Amino acid sequence: MSPHRCGRGRPKGGSSESIDKLASRLLERGTLKGTDGGEQRIERIVLLDVVPAEGFTDPRIEVVTGDIADATLLGRVVDRNTSSVFHLAAIVSGQAEADFELGMRINLDASRLLLDACRAPGHRPRVVFTSSVAVYGGKLPEVVLDTTALNPQSSYGAQKAIGELLVNDYSRKGFIDGRVLRLPTISVRPGRPNKAASSFASGIIREPLNGIEAVCPVAAETRLWLLSPRRAIESLIAGHELQAEALGLSRTINLPGISVSVREMVDALQRVAGADVVKRIRWERDPAVERIVASWPGAWDTARAKSLGLGGDADFDSVIRAHIEDEKPAAVR
Amino acid sequence: MSPHRCGRGRPKGGSSESIDKLASRLLERGTLKGTDGGEQRIERIVLLDVVPAEGFTDPRIEVVTGDIADATLLGRVVDRNTSSVFHLAAIVSGQAEADFELGMRINLDASRLLLDACRAPGHRPRVVFTSSVAVYGGKLPEVVLDTTALNPQSSYGAQKAIGELLVNDYSRKGFIDGRVLRLPTISVRPGRPNKAASSFASGIIREPLNGIEAVCPVAAETRLWLLSPRRAIESLIAGHELQAEALGLSRTINLPGISVSVREMVDALQRVAGADVVKRIRWERDPAVERIVASWPGAWDTARAKSLGLGGDADFDSVIRAHIEDEKPAAVR
Repeated sequence: MSPHRCGRGRPKGGSSESIDKLASRLLERGTLKGTDGGEQRIERIVLLDVVPAEGFTDPRIEVVTGDIADATLLGRVVDRNTSSVFHLAAIVSGQAEADFELGMRINLDASRLLLDACRAPGHRPRVVFTSSVAVYGGKLPEVVLDTTALNPQSSYGAQKAIGELLVNDYSRKGFIDGRVLRLPTISVRPGRPNKAASSFASGIIREPLNGIEAVCPVAAETRLWLLSPRRAIESLIAGHELQAEALGLSRTINLPGISVSVREMVDALQRVAGADVVKRIRWERDPAVERIVASWPGAWDTARAKSLGLGGDADFDSVIRAHIEDEKPAAVR
Repeated sequence: MSPHRCGRGRPKGGSSESIDKLASRLLERGTLKGTDGGEQRIERIVLLDVVPAEGFTDPRIEVVTGDIADATLLGRVVDRNTSSVFHLAAIVSGQAEADFELGMRINLDASRLLLDACRAPGHRPRVVFTSSVAVYGGKLPEVVLDTTALNPQSSYGAQKAIGELLVNDYSRKGFIDGRVLRLPTISVRPGRPNKAASSFASGIIREPLNGIEAVCPVAAETRLWLLSPRRAIESLIAGHELQAEALGLSRTINLPGISVSVREMVDALQRVAGADVVKRIRWERDPAVERIVASWPGAWDTARAKSLGLGGDADFDSVIRAHIEDEKPAAVR
């Protein structure tokens, strides 16, 4: 068995760290469930990205560098031995809004090419496709339900919603065994700021902890729906492990998050790391970011995910503590 | 001003008659609203189809025969003078289910190519895109709301839902001035049976009226959401005439229909045309058709359409009478 991870668009951004963490976690586990439900040994993990993954020494890891919108390359990395695909590649929200063609090419065309590579004769891998809060938008209820219509207000959201439809239809047709995991905004992401409209949701915690100033481009009342990187990785694997029969007529699952306002995030940072750290946040509103972020839901119903055994974080204080534990930021070392 | 009608996939099927009727109605009207809201004279109507439109003698009509998935052709027929596009081309539900590639090519790729032709520099036509009951599916409320999530259970439905997302995002970006009209099942379609799963919804009325036997492949209790061809044409034009500001954050409108069971349709046929006509219906269930049709909603909320001034039919008896008036079928002449 060789689960392939086809990851990352370009440039190296939000998903790169998640992919490295996912690969490390899979190596640690050593097994994944196969389509028959039985535990299977992971023999090979292919890391496909536009920038080479670094730091892996495990012989099970194969690093492939290339364009995920290249059908020939996809046909080479996805083969009959591919039992699982984790598709995290994306042009993030802010960049997909600024460069429409690039967003369409990676978020839509590459996703479709990948699905087509997965449905070649003799293939039928389990495919985990990550989606986003950004598929929702417009007038929303306080808590979004599984039955709430999508109305994306960004090209990123529209492209993710299209990917969801494709994964569902390819699964219904029996071409793949897909599952769509709608992720809350990930915070606290390690690494550096990226072009996601939600980049600040990690930046306002991560940068101050590193002794660096961070700009918060939205109002303190803005409500976000958050998931920690640790929990996100566990959810990707748990979503993979679900049996298809449990999913019924929809392959899409809204993953549990925690609903916090930006003010509550900052209060949590102060509780965990002190008032001096919080002073490194500069408040400067950016209408382009605000418009996108305000269109996202602040919470959604988690009943389905929970009934499938998928959980979220306890509270944001513990999310910050886990970040400090994992990343050992400068200012609190 | 030259409204272009880019129509019909292949083969000549369900939408061909609608396109001919739409063109005739537009010629009769002579004007359409422009993007500024003012009435503009229709100078030219381009009828693009894979089979040539026939029977038009009006000099304003230009018949173009070709493949709607041909970007070069689309670039030629959509130009700076194109103020309106009515996009009715589709591979119908039954055929898109049987031939996945063909459905993706016409329903998805061609739609996107057409939208891209419309957003070429200096263009920004009003685009009317027709969608369908088939975007809904799975567990549905008795009456579907505008806020009900899409969960298509056919490739046709998935492809239409993707088209909706594209038209909405292209409109939001200002590339086009789009509107998505979700049509109920059209009945009584003139012409011949096609490969739509809903073909019988016209066939069980049309064929008996022509003295021909028709097969009803679903149970009498099956509830359908219907719109007459006359009303459909009026709705396409009325949807075109709406000002963009009236549409808010969603370009998608569920058009009013009438909710009738197949038994009620047959009862109406008996009232209008007599018991002998009804005897020409043979009941023979077809699981492939039933599975698709049963996934569609039997009714949806019409409040938004009505507030925008879009109406439906009064009842199914009058729909049958209008069909007899327009088509003069053999058995009741």
